[in-house]
Amino acid sequence: MSASNDPRGTRRYARRVARVVPGAGHPAEGVISFGSGDAYPESLPDVAELAQRAATKYRTETLQYAPRPGLPELREWIAGHVARDGIRVGADSILVCNGAKQGIELACKLFLDPGDAIVVTRPTYQSALGVFHGWEAAFVEVGMDDDGMRVDELATILADRARQGLPAPKLVYDVPEFHNPSGVTMSRARREALVELAMRHGMVILEDDPYRRIRFSGEPVPPIQSFDRQGCVIGLGTFAKLVAPGLRLGWVIAPPDVVHQMAAMKADGGTTALTQRILVEYCRAGRLEPDIVDRVRTYRAHRDVMAQAVREQLPHATFRLPDGGYYLWLRLPEAVDGDRLAALAEAEGVQVLPSSHFHATPGPKNFVRLAYSYASPSEIVEGVRRLARAYRAMGA
Amino acid sequence: MSASNDPRGTRRYARRVARVVPGAGHPAEGVISFGSGDAYPESLPDVAELAQRAATKYRTETLQYAPRPGLPELREWIAGHVARDGIRVGADSILVCNGAKQGIELACKLFLDPGDAIVVTRPTYQSALGVFHGWEAAFVEVGMDDDGMRVDELATILADRARQGLPAPKLVYDVPEFHNPSGVTMSRARREALVELAMRHGMVILEDDPYRRIRFSGEPVPPIQSFDRQGCVIGLGTFAKLVAPGLRLGWVIAPPDVVHQMAAMKADGGTTALTQRILVEYCRAGRLEPDIVDRVRTYRAHRDVMAQAVREQLPHATFRLPDGGYYLWLRLPEAVDGDRLAALAEAEGVQVLPSSHFHATPGPKNFVRLAYSYASPSEIVEGVRRLARAYRAMGA
Repeated sequence: MSASNDPRGTRRYARRVARVVPGAGHPAEGVISFGSGDAYPESLPDVAELAQRAATKYRTETLQYAPRPGLPELREWIAGHVARDGIRVGADSILVCNGAKQGIELACKLFLDPGDAIVVTRPTYQSALGVFHGWEAAFVEVGMDDDGMRVDELATILADRARQGLPAPKLVYDVPEFHNPSGVTMSRARREALVELAMRHGMVILEDDPYRRIRFSGEPVPPIQSFDRQGCVIGLGTFAKLVAPGLRLGWVIAPPDVVHQMAAMKADGGTTALTQRILVEYCRAGRLEPDIVDRVRTYRAHRDVMAQAVREQLPHATFRLPDGGYYLWLRLPEAVDGDRLAALAEAEGVQVLPSSHFHATPGPKNFVRLAYSYASPSEIVEGVRRLARAYRAMGA
Repeated sequence: MSASNDPRGTRRYARRVARVVPGAGHPAEGVISFGSGDAYPESLPDVAELAQRAATKYRTETLQYAPRPGLPELREWIAGHVARDGIRVGADSILVCNGAKQGIELACKLFLDPGDAIVVTRPTYQSALGVFHGWEAAFVEVGMDDDGMRVDELATILADRARQGLPAPKLVYDVPEFHNPSGVTMSRARREALVELAMRHGMVILEDDPYRRIRFSGEPVPPIQSFDRQGCVIGLGTFAKLVAPGLRLGWVIAPPDVVHQMAAMKADGGTTALTQRILVEYCRAGRLEPDIVDRVRTYRAHRDVMAQAVREQLPHATFRLPDGGYYLWLRLPEAVDGDRLAALAEAEGVQVLPSSHFHATPGPKNFVRLAYSYASPSEIVEGVRRLARAYRAMGA
């Protein structure tokens, strides 16, 4: 049999395969991880009793196929939860999914044909980029400043596109609250302007909001979706940062017809009811709010330790101290190649993500993202020390 | 704002949306369900202690992000499990996913560009059809007889396509053991011939094998994948029929490079480790095999009750008594419209699925599928009685 006839050969793969970007991967043994936004292990909740109850009292519910859009009680709880942020919808506007990332996937599946344009910030969340690449999106990149996405720049781009006879992008993706990776929060005025722009151009805004409750200081800005009167915003939320990443539970907030379509497209037979039931019981028991207070205290301390260590060990790095979220976004002198720094850092025993992961098309290379969520304070100090060694080894 | 500018309007949806086929849906209160292949509630296992242990002893593992391809111990267990059927692969050939259905989705994402052809039997599994429609597949339908898919007919079709300069289909999908919906098991000779044909034409076979262990009589036929020496078969398995549907755990068996690509495409951040750990512990505790014996005994009794009731109540229906699996596939006189019968049956208080759900393109309408898995023996008797009433109401 000739190689060209090999059914496993890439020639038989779909076009989109070439564009799939694999994740960073788990770090090797002994390597301190500033790579992905895992939870601090000691802040993971004890759900043993809830898990037991889910498997006994609710056995029939949790071990059969769940309703495709999610357990009704969880959908209702989420609707109540987001109402506090000004998003007033019924439970039929909530879709439970396997992490917010599945929500991104479903939005792509629902809205994107190959080659359709999507607006992203520069930089933007690397895992979302991976999904968009997989759906063969074309990218429209928009810059950021201290108020978040430059909506004025986007308006100019859209006007230019219209003049050239190009269609408006179908989606605008952003993490407006504690932006990943930059930590910036988008101003209220920008959010309102973005909704206005989306309505005018018939674009759907995909608002990814995982870090809202991980706020250390300042006042939250209402979600973009709270300014939406036309159903042009699809919200994404997650229990990953509120409770535990491993439960793989997130949600989509969208007009009921969009939820209905997405549920039909959910090719997993419905998210497992076992973890949904655990969460319903966890929230009903009133454990969420005190646990969030605890998490905020923990991550604020982690942020402060990391910021202090960076100031001491890496005086050439600059960063904006984030008011919340999981990350420091370090800017290094322009000559520094973040990819090379990350490789050297990994060899020194610390994992960081270079800016190349966060750009839809090649962009500035002199940034690295450091997650302070997972490592302990002493690991954070040691990790930054290792990163500084890698930095010095570059001869920068 | 004009309606045509409404971002929620279907004109903004991707092309594929028009093709998404929603599932049958849960039956209304009081309606006996012969619709979907849910487990018999009394046969659902007690996993309370395992769930508790997963949340305590394995807390860090189960509440953080899991490795994308699955827990190593579960992948190894699955590799050992399928080795007994003659599929000899390492754990790196196993991908854990959210039910076998996610495996179907990932195979489509990996191999299908819009318009690519896929071979299916006529009839075939309705949920797989829904996924294929969603990926804009073109269908090549092949007939069946008592030995399963007519591989000779497929050979003729492929030769005709080649003469017309058409490419070979990329995928061949089948449920060879206790075919859904027909209950037929494909002969060994056909399986070998199908592998031969797939290799010759560079096609990938997607072998969906959920019912293998639910065998009431006769000897199992080795999986198609056990005859594959070239990596042209992708196997799909599931714990849904072995343990519980609600855990949403299935697996893909494929060459390691395919597993690697599919894992990168799994836009759910990895299947939850909590249910994976519960299953590892369940299998290690030696509970699987005795539970399977119990399930086979239960479903054989259900099948016999249903077969007897159909013979008594619906003398005009004919069926092949299946040696295993979950379904009776009833053939009614040719003039009977299965869609109308299913609608009348639902009004009488029993849910069945008409043959139109199982055909990629319009086909014979005089069949209905009855699942005997979920209903109790007395519900089965009553449900068949209701179906017979609906049948008589048609005036057939």
